[in-house]
Amino acid sequence: MIVAMQDQATDEQITTVIERMVELGFNVHRTTGEAQTILAGVGTPAHFEVTEFQVLPGVHQAYRISSPYKLAGRGFRPEGTRITFPNGVVVGGEEVVVMSGPCSVESRDQIRLSAKQVAAAGCQFLRGGAYKPRSSPYSFQGMGLEGLKIMREAADEYGLLVITEVMEISQIEPMLEYIDCFQVGARNMQNFNLLRELGNVRKPVLMKRGIAATIEEVLLSAEYILSGGNYDLMLCERGIRTFETYTRNTYDISAIPVLKKLTHLPVLGDPSHGVGKREFVPAMALASVAAGADGLLMEMHPNPDKAMSDGAQSLFPEQLNQLMAKLHQLAPVVDRKLAPAVVPAHA
Amino acid sequence: MIVAMQDQATDEQITTVIERMVELGFNVHRTTGEAQTILAGVGTPAHFEVTEFQVLPGVHQAYRISSPYKLAGRGFRPEGTRITFPNGVVVGGEEVVVMSGPCSVESRDQIRLSAKQVAAAGCQFLRGGAYKPRSSPYSFQGMGLEGLKIMREAADEYGLLVITEVMEISQIEPMLEYIDCFQVGARNMQNFNLLRELGNVRKPVLMKRGIAATIEEVLLSAEYILSGGNYDLMLCERGIRTFETYTRNTYDISAIPVLKKLTHLPVLGDPSHGVGKREFVPAMALASVAAGADGLLMEMHPNPDKAMSDGAQSLFPEQLNQLMAKLHQLAPVVDRKLAPAVVPAHA
Amino acid sequence: MIVAMQDQATDEQITTVIERMVELGFNVHRTTGEAQTILAGVGTPAHFEVTEFQVLPGVHQAYRISSPYKLAGRGFRPEGTRITFPNGVVVGGEEVVVMSGPCSVESRDQIRLSAKQVAAAGCQFLRGGAYKPRSSPYSFQGMGLEGLKIMREAADEYGLLVITEVMEISQIEPMLEYIDCFQVGARNMQNFNLLRELGNVRKPVLMKRGIAATIEEVLLSAEYILSGGNYDLMLCERGIRTFETYTRNTYDISAIPVLKKLTHLPVLGDPSHGVGKREFVPAMALASVAAGADGLLMEMHPNPDKAMSDGAQSLFPEQLNQLMAKLHQLAPVVDRKLAPAVVPAHA
Amino acid sequence: MIVAMQDQATDEQITTVIERMVELGFNVHRTTGEAQTILAGVGTPAHFEVTEFQVLPGVHQAYRISSPYKLAGRGFRPEGTRITFPNGVVVGGEEVVVMSGPCSVESRDQIRLSAKQVAAAGCQFLRGGAYKPRSSPYSFQGMGLEGLKIMREAADEYGLLVITEVMEISQIEPMLEYIDCFQVGARNMQNFNLLRELGNVRKPVLMKRGIAATIEEVLLSAEYILSGGNYDLMLCERGIRTFETYTRNTYDISAIPVLKKLTHLPVLGDPSHGVGKREFVPAMALASVAAGADGLLMEMHPNPDKAMSDGAQSLFPEQLNQLMAKLHQLAPVVDRKLAPAVVPAHA
Repeated sequence: MIVAMQDQATDEQITTVIERMVELGFNVHRTTGEAQTILAGVGTPAHFEVTEFQVLPGVHQAYRISSPYKLAGRGFRPEGTRITFPNGVVVGGEEVVVMSGPCSVESRDQIRLSAKQVAAAGCQFLRGGAYKPRSSPYSFQGMGLEGLKIMREAADEYGLLVITEVMEISQIEPMLEYIDCFQVGARNMQNFNLLRELGNVRKPVLMKRGIAATIEEVLLSAEYILSGGNYDLMLCERGIRTFETYTRNTYDISAIPVLKKLTHLPVLGDPSHGVGKREFVPAMALASVAAGADGLLMEMHPNPDKAMSDGAQSLFPEQLNQLMAKLHQLAPVVDRKLAPAVVPAHA
Repeated sequence: MIVAMQDQATDEQITTVIERMVELGFNVHRTTGEAQTILAGVGTPAHFEVTEFQVLPGVHQAYRISSPYKLAGRGFRPEGTRITFPNGVVVGGEEVVVMSGPCSVESRDQIRLSAKQVAAAGCQFLRGGAYKPRSSPYSFQGMGLEGLKIMREAADEYGLLVITEVMEISQIEPMLEYIDCFQVGARNMQNFNLLRELGNVRKPVLMKRGIAATIEEVLLSAEYILSGGNYDLMLCERGIRTFETYTRNTYDISAIPVLKKLTHLPVLGDPSHGVGKREFVPAMALASVAAGADGLLMEMHPNPDKAMSDGAQSLFPEQLNQLMAKLHQLAPVVDRKLAPAVVPAHA
Repeated sequence: MIVAMQDQATDEQITTVIERMVELGFNVHRTTGEAQTILAGVGTPAHFEVTEFQVLPGVHQAYRISSPYKLAGRGFRPEGTRITFPNGVVVGGEEVVVMSGPCSVESRDQIRLSAKQVAAAGCQFLRGGAYKPRSSPYSFQGMGLEGLKIMREAADEYGLLVITEVMEISQIEPMLEYIDCFQVGARNMQNFNLLRELGNVRKPVLMKRGIAATIEEVLLSAEYILSGGNYDLMLCERGIRTFETYTRNTYDISAIPVLKKLTHLPVLGDPSHGVGKREFVPAMALASVAAGADGLLMEMHPNPDKAMSDGAQSLFPEQLNQLMAKLHQLAPVVDRKLAPAVVPAHA
Repeated sequence: MIVAMQDQATDEQITTVIERMVELGFNVHRTTGEAQTILAGVGTPAHFEVTEFQVLPGVHQAYRISSPYKLAGRGFRPEGTRITFPNGVVVGGEEVVVMSGPCSVESRDQIRLSAKQVAAAGCQFLRGGAYKPRSSPYSFQGMGLEGLKIMREAADEYGLLVITEVMEISQIEPMLEYIDCFQVGARNMQNFNLLRELGNVRKPVLMKRGIAATIEEVLLSAEYILSGGNYDLMLCERGIRTFETYTRNTYDISAIPVLKKLTHLPVLGDPSHGVGKREFVPAMALASVAAGADGLLMEMHPNPDKAMSDGAQSLFPEQLNQLMAKLHQLAPVVDRKLAPAVVPAHA
């Protein structure tokens, strides 16, 4: 930590700051300039709050200089994390994976048709919500466990992996049987109790960036899961809230290369929630891969105009096909390739 | 709902939109102008998504015109909600209440001294966190149930009510015995499972606005609690995230009169989290009451420089005293008065 | 400046950074910790960019620790700036001033009636736009010089001072004859050529905060005017752009005490633009003065429903009267009083 | 315009709204539902403010349904605008153009070397600032007219076009002789006097999106230039201000396809200002073209570590070369190609 004192700081004020730094466990080096004194605290105390120093009398500014996260930092695993799924699909390597499917599991027919289309388009994961976080209590809240069962069946038939959102600690245990990957939604990125529990399971997790979460907060939330011992973690940019309302959110594509630099964890993009209107999803999907994404999460619905939720941002099946063709062409430009299509169970 | 078609929309496109509106349960009235057709949907279908219409071919824009919340709206209870607590304190009436105390319960001595100072200053509620949501897993996470017990003891000794944060469904049951009011933190404002459970208890709840929550989202989250049958709900502005970083958040004081207009629920302000630096808290507390707040939630610590969390924004006991004196003078200007000081148990 | 090197920084990288710091004019003090090296640069080079260091190889983070503004800083004039106007009104002292009037000067009758009502309410300044910045080229663009002349006449008749917006360098000279104070609008807060010219005139200036301007940027823009030698400068908070759309802007009242701490310049609030809807203006005006504002700028129109611009946020004359009465009661709570009403010329 | 009345609106309130709509020039169609009355105003009055209706008694909400811009809308020129430059380069067609060069023109040698490198990399335009908008009055303010002259010389030697920023009306006339394209910076996007003057010149203009400008405001500002008769206008996304501070701005790539849909004007991207750190610029440049950009504006400096401004975001010449090679591969994926390299004058 560094504390820059005000020009007119008194000796007594400087001494108070030094004593508090030492008390916390820092070794303090003092630089006295013509006008200003600078205190450099060396060492890494277990926990301290830099804001505490910012309001001490005589302090101009205080900076934390060590990274507040450890396990999530790139330095912890410089070569990058690769997550291997049961069917051999790897996330975080050379191959770019694609996860697609409807916002909500609505019926056996709907999810089965979705799985068929998702597999036919060449994707690896079937996504679909069984437990739905909805802003209004009067909106469709999801099919629950029953939805998970029929999604598992549908995915198995076509060789797909299952990713779906977990909203609550009590859902973790029953979900384990049916899914391949937990998804933590944007609204739960700082539901620390949930994160801590997910650190204790041995099943991959994809954690989305909160709508107002800084890059640092994303990595601190990742730290909750990693520190429990679950290292199979992926991050996902899905748009942040800004003043612009033409798009549902502002899809912060720059977060993809920034996260790839700061952390060893795979980083995916979710352009569907990023922009919220299907017509812009293909352009944003291409841009995400051009920017270095390890994968994509996109909503597709067999009949988006009749979807029970998020129809406006769900691709038509044919749009997904066309987009996959473009992605196949684009990936090599950035020295990647799309992961191969999965093989149906009955093949 | 209203759908404004594009100038060049075809008859077929218009017909498709009308059919979908009728299918959802709207009666549709069509206005054909020189250039543009407008479709007014009358009626209130159980659930529909306005975004679905925004992406239909030929649609220029679609607007939801009915309010998406019902129980939270001012019209549901025009005279305003008043919540009466066990010791007779009423929130939502003429009197302005003050809730104060440390960020975290740290020890029996600390919370007992806090309670004494909070009561002496003339406040009605003792606040203090036993379960703490912290961005970093390495920060102090709270004393848990043990913290609640000693907070209850301290509050009882001085006649104060207890308000504290609940983070997880499983905490609700054990908390019931020790507290007078649940607090839902900003990070949990869209933890819908938690909200739904709090709708089932019969104990008041104070719900804070999320850091990136719109006014409408605040009211929709309130609807989750109200629709469970728990009407003893207060809302609390505590700052939103913007580009400005000098203050911890941007304390949106205008949300106070806006919420007072839109809902019948009491509205409080939390200037401590709003600005994050104690020196600006008194000015923001005065401004909140001037703007119509029904109460204040503020951090105070017997020794802020040694606080285990949020020391930078905690008032010194003497600052709280001085502020209370000012608040007593200010309240009558806006036709309010401060709630009377509580009477200690041993009095 | 302080440069914190990465844990794994090489000696060569450290040397490169030191050499560049020395080249710019810093004396460099080096602190070598177990893992990390910290370089403290003492001295104040004429100009340097801290971002330049942030991207040098081996650098973890770099911080500017000296304030980038000099003349605007509180330390330059600790007692605070007071601006005395021709009729004896002082801004920046104990008294709180009020500036009011229509958004646009629309006609001789309209501005004369406005002046009468503004004076009767007890305000000191007549505001009104003759040159109007409008988002659309098809909106009313103002009466120009003719508007200034009739505003001057109206103000003189009732003893009011005139404040009005300048948008362009070429308008400065012709305006000088008719006005008492230039207003720089939010859109021009970083129109540096205009600011520089206003530094050369000897007439007070009120500069509004830009819609996306940080506190530091406000003070740097102030520095442009001050460094030209014009010290009669006031700042004005008028709302920033955030994700919330219920209000026109988010009125950042905390900026008022923050600016009062950082600078010696008077700080006013403009709740009309802050919230954009007249029904919330009185509450925000009271809150502004409670927070320490040196004055208020508010729109009032004799007939807001027929206003040519910003009618929705203009107070009715009677609302202004009632508000002024409340402000008279509120000011003493924060050890201020309202400036006395002006004396009409014919009195 | 559409006005949705409140459920409890009185007949008198409804009549007042209708009368005001008729007064402004609307034909009003009234739809009376069980609970709510909806008023559809058909026609397009010259100017009206929708906010005026939002605050009328009994009004629930009012919506403008006609687009506030006319000339900028896609419908005005559905095939898209193509701008042809003196040397035959076309912006807005199949080919993607690249504009590059230093932030500031610093010396004859620097700009000549820059031009050489920019041309060698295969770009079409030389960018460089002679008049510099700087947040601080103590930062380097640019070489002015002298800078323009040496930039023109350098560009001519290598066959490049010149684009540079205009900050002030008085600069337009002297600049005309030396440049091929005016650039309006983000800070001047709502400097309406400047925009209006640029509508009167017959020289192309590239206008950047303001740091807090909505898509609609971008198009309204474009309307100022177009309505003066200058149709050779390009728009440019360059990052918006959000809560995220790791990057200089949040580069809103989705604005590119959104603008391409809404307007016929060419749309470019400026990833340098978008992210502010050179290491992320190539990824964002690729993403921009993948998202449909008609061109790129990027900072490059022969020696970025010694640049007088914005060195941190300037590419090294070798980085630009490598990026151009990638762009050549990427463009065909989205059915585009890079514009051919220019031919030096002495060739």
